[in-house]
Amino acid sequence: MKQATLDHETANSGLERAIERPWFRNFITGLIIFNAIILGVLTYQDSLPHGFVQVLEVVDHAVTWIFAAEIAIKLAGYRFVFFRSGWNWFDFIVVGISLVPGAGAFSVLRALRVLRVLRLLHVVPMMRRISEALLKALPGMGAIIAVLALVTYVAAVMATNMYGDTDTEEVKQLFGDLPSSALSLFQVMTMDGWRFEVVQKVVDDGHPNAWLFFLVFIFVASFAILNLFIALVVDSLAAEQKAVLEEGIHDLEEDLEDIEEEIEDEREEASDARAEILDALKELQREVAELKSAVAGR
Amino acid sequence: MKQATLDHETANSGLERAIERPWFRNFITGLIIFNAIILGVLTYQDSLPHGFVQVLEVVDHAVTWIFAAEIAIKLAGYRFVFFRSGWNWFDFIVVGISLVPGAGAFSVLRALRVLRVLRLLHVVPMMRRISEALLKALPGMGAIIAVLALVTYVAAVMATNMYGDTDTEEVKQLFGDLPSSALSLFQVMTMDGWRFEVVQKVVDDGHPNAWLFFLVFIFVASFAILNLFIALVVDSLAAEQKAVLEEGIHDLEEDLEDIEEEIEDEREEASDARAEILDALKELQREVAELKSAVAGR
Amino acid sequence: MKQATLDHETANSGLERAIERPWFRNFITGLIIFNAIILGVLTYQDSLPHGFVQVLEVVDHAVTWIFAAEIAIKLAGYRFVFFRSGWNWFDFIVVGISLVPGAGAFSVLRALRVLRVLRLLHVVPMMRRISEALLKALPGMGAIIAVLALVTYVAAVMATNMYGDTDTEEVKQLFGDLPSSALSLFQVMTMDGWRFEVVQKVVDDGHPNAWLFFLVFIFVASFAILNLFIALVVDSLAAEQKAVLEEGIHDLEEDLEDIEEEIEDEREEASDARAEILDALKELQREVAELKSAVAGR
Amino acid sequence: MKQATLDHETANSGLERAIERPWFRNFITGLIIFNAIILGVLTYQDSLPHGFVQVLEVVDHAVTWIFAAEIAIKLAGYRFVFFRSGWNWFDFIVVGISLVPGAGAFSVLRALRVLRVLRLLHVVPMMRRISEALLKALPGMGAIIAVLALVTYVAAVMATNMYGDTDTEEVKQLFGDLPSSALSLFQVMTMDGWRFEVVQKVVDDGHPNAWLFFLVFIFVASFAILNLFIALVVDSLAAEQKAVLEEGIHDLEEDLEDIEEEIEDEREEASDARAEILDALKELQREVAELKSAVAGR
Repeated sequence: MKQATLDHETANSGLERAIERPWFRNFITGLIIFNAIILGVLTYQDSLPHGFVQVLEVVDHAVTWIFAAEIAIKLAGYRFVFFRSGWNWFDFIVVGISLVPGAGAFSVLRALRVLRVLRLLHVVPMMRRISEALLKALPGMGAIIAVLALVTYVAAVMATNMYGDTDTEEVKQLFGDLPSSALSLFQVMTMDGWRFEVVQKVVDDGHPNAWLFFLVFIFVASFAILNLFIALVVDSLAAEQKAVLEEGIHDLEEDLEDIEEEIEDEREEASDARAEILDALKELQREVAELKSAVAGR
Repeated sequence: MKQATLDHETANSGLERAIERPWFRNFITGLIIFNAIILGVLTYQDSLPHGFVQVLEVVDHAVTWIFAAEIAIKLAGYRFVFFRSGWNWFDFIVVGISLVPGAGAFSVLRALRVLRVLRLLHVVPMMRRISEALLKALPGMGAIIAVLALVTYVAAVMATNMYGDTDTEEVKQLFGDLPSSALSLFQVMTMDGWRFEVVQKVVDDGHPNAWLFFLVFIFVASFAILNLFIALVVDSLAAEQKAVLEEGIHDLEEDLEDIEEEIEDEREEASDARAEILDALKELQREVAELKSAVAGR
Repeated sequence: MKQATLDHETANSGLERAIERPWFRNFITGLIIFNAIILGVLTYQDSLPHGFVQVLEVVDHAVTWIFAAEIAIKLAGYRFVFFRSGWNWFDFIVVGISLVPGAGAFSVLRALRVLRVLRLLHVVPMMRRISEALLKALPGMGAIIAVLALVTYVAAVMATNMYGDTDTEEVKQLFGDLPSSALSLFQVMTMDGWRFEVVQKVVDDGHPNAWLFFLVFIFVASFAILNLFIALVVDSLAAEQKAVLEEGIHDLEEDLEDIEEEIEDEREEASDARAEILDALKELQREVAELKSAVAGR
Repeated sequence: MKQATLDHETANSGLERAIERPWFRNFITGLIIFNAIILGVLTYQDSLPHGFVQVLEVVDHAVTWIFAAEIAIKLAGYRFVFFRSGWNWFDFIVVGISLVPGAGAFSVLRALRVLRVLRLLHVVPMMRRISEALLKALPGMGAIIAVLALVTYVAAVMATNMYGDTDTEEVKQLFGDLPSSALSLFQVMTMDGWRFEVVQKVVDDGHPNAWLFFLVFIFVASFAILNLFIALVVDSLAAEQKAVLEEGIHDLEEDLEDIEEEIEDEREEASDARAEILDALKELQREVAELKSAVAGR
């Protein structure tokens, strides 16, 4: 999700350069917050005067078009580089949804308009740091979530087979088909009303040992979630710790290198001293030898 | 929130010096606890004899005025320095509330009287350590709480738009307006009765796919909270660990410095030895040379 | 649960060698997923055309026999080594259950068929890593789970004695016999509806101080679970950290060994130098002595 | 809670020595488990034949007297040292309760009989390790639990004042007096049914802004609990880590000491070498001087 690095030679028109400036970022941030407030006020549209609602709708459309223009300028400036950033894809989609013709008509598409406000998640640097940290943690959770999903699927098939074929309306709602069973088991996993809203109803429906099935499921699921959590804490900490430790050890290693150098220097000096002394001694020997021959030769 | 350092020259009257003494702190601590008990007993005022309630009210007033006097003395002693401490502000406000004329009449203001008891949070040193640690942890949570609030706001706008326009009273109560939606989503986030008190009611109100919206919200919110938690643990631990590690490495570095000095000393000694030996050799050479000339000269 | 190492000389037939190949593992993985989908679709058997259900049942049987054949080949190849792997036991049991004659008749045995799908937990390497990590963490939790179970048993006996002998149907359901009490206390431990579904009902049944019993139980149980969790985090991290630290210290120790060697070398050189210089001096002395005798002898 | 060290000279009779033997510990462990089963079976006393119940009661009494005898022997052996161990106090009390005359009559005292089974917590070494670890963690939690209790007390007084004076029976049950309010706030803190069982009922009772009070309380309490938890994890880990780190650094320091010694040795050798060489040189000088005078003297 890292922002595609800018090709400044491509983004050379005035407008294109403007969108990289801090004031423009602040302007967009302000506009998103303003838009968020408008969309919040619009949830009261039934109790507001009709004219005011229409004004708000027009302003909301205007803001949407400003966002669309911003994206168009970026697209024109960066070309295909634009789509290398996940956040740009995000902007493209959430703004695009609002521009779909007929978006005003369907309640779901209307509701999705407010996703635009989530642009704050990457426009405000402080939030961007958090949201990128969250996204980075996702893959590490992948394997354990796959295990949880598999266990839930298997348990849902079992529960549907064992408890789903019933005339009790309440139990049918809980375990009548596969998606309902999965949702009920997720409810049990979150420990929300697991006993009287789920387990007891199945027990009362002629399955006196059903509590065993659910207890096993609770233990397996809680245990897996617990370990998921611990793995995340341990991984984060081990990484952090490795960095701190490596820095400390690096410092010590530098000190040790200094000492090694010092010892090397000392060895060199000692070797020099030895050579110098031995030279002096050889010179002396030579002179004594000369003296000897002088004494002898006389 | 650190206590403003005392200007002892300013706090020079007898009273002003007294409030810094341990016995005074203990007296105030006892008075707050006594006040807490009175306020607790006063919650039973309807079943107590009228005269006893009046006595308690008078005592409560007296205690309030003692607190007010304490603050007044501090104010007189420290002047503007008084307001540099967050805890002094806290005392000033919670005691001030009780002295507002008519405070006895309105139930909310009466209820706020008991906030005075929270003064224990900084008067008792053990609790002060805890409460300051809690306050220090707050800013670190800021960014992720902002992300959670933003996600909840966006989801609340969506839920109000999608589910709020209904005739079912129960669903109206849950998602009829923006604050209700936000509260309902917070309820879902805390996993309290999320399935049958919230999701099922919306599903039954003609939104068969609503469980998808809520599951996505649960996952996003839980995931963010999980990461908030992990970040706090990791940060605290990394800081703690850095301190421990740095101390250990500091010790080692001192040892290494000792070794370096030792090596330096050795080098100096070796250099001295070399000079001394070479001097002696030179002296010898000179004498041999003299000898040589003596032999030759004869 | 480690896979028994293969005795390649035993597994020498073509079939036996084939089951170790990656393409075979992928084939089995695909087959398990295909089987999972069939078993999922079969939960809708009442609303599907009878013929289609029969086809699915036949396919399911065929897949089961393929799994059985796979296990038979492994058994033939590895003989008793086969049962040294916990995962092989797992496969043997979950596939065996489906082959029990009459398994199609009883709903529980039919429901257990889907456990076959859990074979993915060790066939897919990514999931295998996770599930083995989970299994490895189990023994470390043993002691504290034993403590929790003991506390729950004692509390269940107490609750049955104190609250079980009643005419109120709801309280009888909660604490009428030992297993019900244990389940109710487990419910209280998970904090699910503890107040109004459990405590309040007992209080209303003529035990006004029952909340004390349950609060103590909640505190003891939560506290034990909290500590279980902390112990797991701390153990995992301490192990991780020890590894990182030991690596760092190993590096430093190697550096120190280098230095020690360097110093040793230096000492040797210094000792050589000393010997060489002293030899030269002795030679010189001898020559001076000769010279002396030469001078004296003349 | 450490076991008082034994004064073997005091515990010198045969019986007194026997209770320290492993087989006796195993016998007591078995007896406690046997007793636990009897007390479990006795919860079914209404549906068991009267004779069988009487037999079980007699056996239970017998076991209690064996426990009492065990304690009496210990008391006789160790005298006052016996009471230095918290676990001995624990045994003394839980066994004593069963011997109170009339204990069979009152349901509460009868219920407390089963506390004897908790003796396993210190008789089984594995459980003893866990339970002592749990007890050791208690004081560290003291300060933050005091803060939580204070905040809950203050909030309970406020809630009783604000919401307790009502005619709605349900709200009266929740906030009618101080203990009820504290329990209701504890329920909100555990997030169990906080919205529809507590907050909504107060809101519907004519306090439309009550959700604000409860949200603030939830945030403060959750935040404090979160920090309690983090502090415990961080403290445990920091201690563990300090131990690991100190061990590593101790190893390194030993290596450094070796090096320092080596350098010291080297310096000494160098100093010896210097002295030896200079001696040799002086000797040489003397001889050259003699030679010189010999040459001159001739």
